Amino acid sequence: VSGDAFGVFRRPGQAPRVGVRRGDAVLDVAAVAGALGVPEAVLAAPSLNALMALGPDAARAVREADAPAVPVADVELVLPVAVADYVDFYSSLDHATNLGRLFRPGGEPLLPNWRELPVGYHGRAGTVVVSGTEIVRPSGQRRPGGPGEPGRPVFGPSVRLDIELELGFVVGLPSALGEPVPVDRALEHVFGAVLVNDWSARDIQAWEYQPLGPFLGKSFATSVSPWVVPLDLLAPARVERPAQEPEPLPYLREAPWAYDLALEVELNGTVVSRPNGRHLYWSVAQQVAHLTANGASLRTGDLLATGTISGPGREERGSLIELAWNGAEPVELAETTRTFLEDGDEVVLRGRGRGIDLGEVRGRISPAR
Amino acid sequence: VSGDAFGVFRRPGQAPRVGVRRGDAVLDVAAVAGALGVPEAVLAAPSLNALMALGPDAARAVREADAPAVPVADVELVLPVAVADYVDFYSSLDHATNLGRLFRPGGEPLLPNWRELPVGYHGRAGTVVVSGTEIVRPSGQRRPGGPGEPGRPVFGPSVRLDIELELGFVVGLPSALGEPVPVDRALEHVFGAVLVNDWSARDIQAWEYQPLGPFLGKSFATSVSPWVVPLDLLAPARVERPAQEPEPLPYLREAPWAYDLALEVELNGTVVSRPNGRHLYWSVAQQVAHLTANGASLRTGDLLATGTISGPGREERGSLIELAWNGAEPVELAETTRTFLEDGDEVVLRGRGRGIDLGEVRGRISPAR
Repeated sequence: VSGDAFGVFRRPGQAPRVGVRRGDAVLDVAAVAGALGVPEAVLAAPSLNALMALGPDAARAVREADAPAVPVADVELVLPVAVADYVDFYSSLDHATNLGRLFRPGGEPLLPNWRELPVGYHGRAGTVVVSGTEIVRPSGQRRPGGPGEPGRPVFGPSVRLDIELELGFVVGLPSALGEPVPVDRALEHVFGAVLVNDWSARDIQAWEYQPLGPFLGKSFATSVSPWVVPLDLLAPARVERPAQEPEPLPYLREAPWAYDLALEVELNGTVVSRPNGRHLYWSVAQQVAHLTANGASLRTGDLLATGTISGPGREERGSLIELAWNGAEPVELAETTRTFLEDGDEVVLRGRGRGIDLGEVRGRISPAR
Repeated sequence: VSGDAFGVFRRPGQAPRVGVRRGDAVLDVAAVAGALGVPEAVLAAPSLNALMALGPDAARAVREADAPAVPVADVELVLPVAVADYVDFYSSLDHATNLGRLFRPGGEPLLPNWRELPVGYHGRAGTVVVSGTEIVRPSGQRRPGGPGEPGRPVFGPSVRLDIELELGFVVGLPSALGEPVPVDRALEHVFGAVLVNDWSARDIQAWEYQPLGPFLGKSFATSVSPWVVPLDLLAPARVERPAQEPEPLPYLREAPWAYDLALEVELNGTVVSRPNGRHLYWSVAQQVAHLTANGASLRTGDLLATGTISGPGREERGSLIELAWNGAEPVELAETTRTFLEDGDEVVLRGRGRGIDLGEVRGRISPAR
């Protein structure tokens, strides 16, 4: 994990505290809060929120602290952010195109609004969990016509449990209700980045989502990596992108860019996909500008996820439904294959590149209760 | 407002505190916290959340307190709940049918999932505001084909700004991740009820909502009444309802019921609609059971809104798009008519019945910035 990333750690039997990553250690920065000019309560805290709300200068001072180091192996890493609102976008052109081909074969894969705005929706903030949290297979309704009960939906454990590899951006400084954030000032509100696994039950989602969008198909769990890499440390990965077509409306207009970060999906020890962040069509700055264009405010702790990141190649798809093409082309593992997740499967998402290391987000599927 | 309702009030220049309604006064219960056996910090607090988390017995003791009374006229009422996740359902059969007729003329008005599950989605918790908060007209993209720019969407102030009259239920006791709440224990998690105006920009919503649901068309503001009426005080309004057809799946099955509460929509001084809560098809118990069926947890402060409440009659519709039938039948006011909201318009929603008074939620539209 990149040095200077922020997390929240807990020694056995003690309360959680803010930590700064340094090699294989965590700096216990609350121990030197006084010398940093930061109230101790900001750092002896169960989340990064109070620190993020102080702005980037305070965070920079904290991460440069000369503080006692604790081995990472000796602590538990907890959810680093008290998530305010969680918004999940749909910003990968290849992902949206793949899903359009799968679900509307023969039609135009992209819906008419996709190239005009960063499509997104609100997810469930209360079920965002830290890497390593057990993922219980969700139950729910799926489409009528299942065996045994034609015409009525079937209720039971999901049989199409999937992952979504995403990046997530955490809001530091809030914005005021009624005041849109211009695209060229959007990054002032972004504290840093995490990896996100937006677990998805495709069968539940397919039956419920008309007309108000995904709900229980997504809300059972969303896993994030424990370390938040501050935005300025991502600068070396910032690369230009081809022009957006059509040119976005003025409130979304900027020189196209993305983060060149090599991502990977590991399933039961086999790397099954290697997407890259540079394929994202809409930037986090455009997402912030869009989200606030109607006057909606940002709060410290808002989590903005990119949506599944897929690239143009077959080995660059960020979900199993794409990798296995809706079951038609099972994914090869060491000694078996997968179309969707089985109980006991473990998924690890990683991200790195240009000297940056986002670490990993890990989760194992346990049987439905 | 019903005596014993809970709110949060602020005297000029002072910090917010929990209050209990008693006639035209607010009981300053924090002043007698010690005698109630409740930590003072729970009541000298900016929201009801800490009190709600203690459970119904603590709340009952607090509302029976012999505490100093402050005239309501002397205090400011603030948002009573720190909203955790906000879920908006779609639980009125007449509303869903009306929208189906408007948007899919000639087709089956209800989508196939509507009678099988309480359709819902997550809204933006961070823009839930208290009654009286100015509502700034949102800007956003609307469908291509507007005047001047055929083929590309137009960005500007919404020209189809609407209301949605709803009831909202606030979660008190949380539930554990991975553990569904059975329908017959769901009400143990509900602290009380408020009135909700889910302001909606129909033009923004219509262009953005495929395939992930409403986003900016709703996220600019959601207004709630300042007083939370505890659930047990609503008991006199609980009435039986006709059987649901088809009978719901077992996890949603209960004897059908609803709250007989007379609701009204007042626009610029004219009452334009009188819906009633008894028309809701899905109960809050079914909503809680559905929301948690996939293992999603409840948090103290979650807000579950019913969705627009409409009845079968023309004068019982809970939104302007229904009342004015998508612009075709303008609503008559004292000296003018309305299809959607104009700048300066003021909307007041009220709810009462069976000795219960939910008070009101009020909002005035100010021009786009």
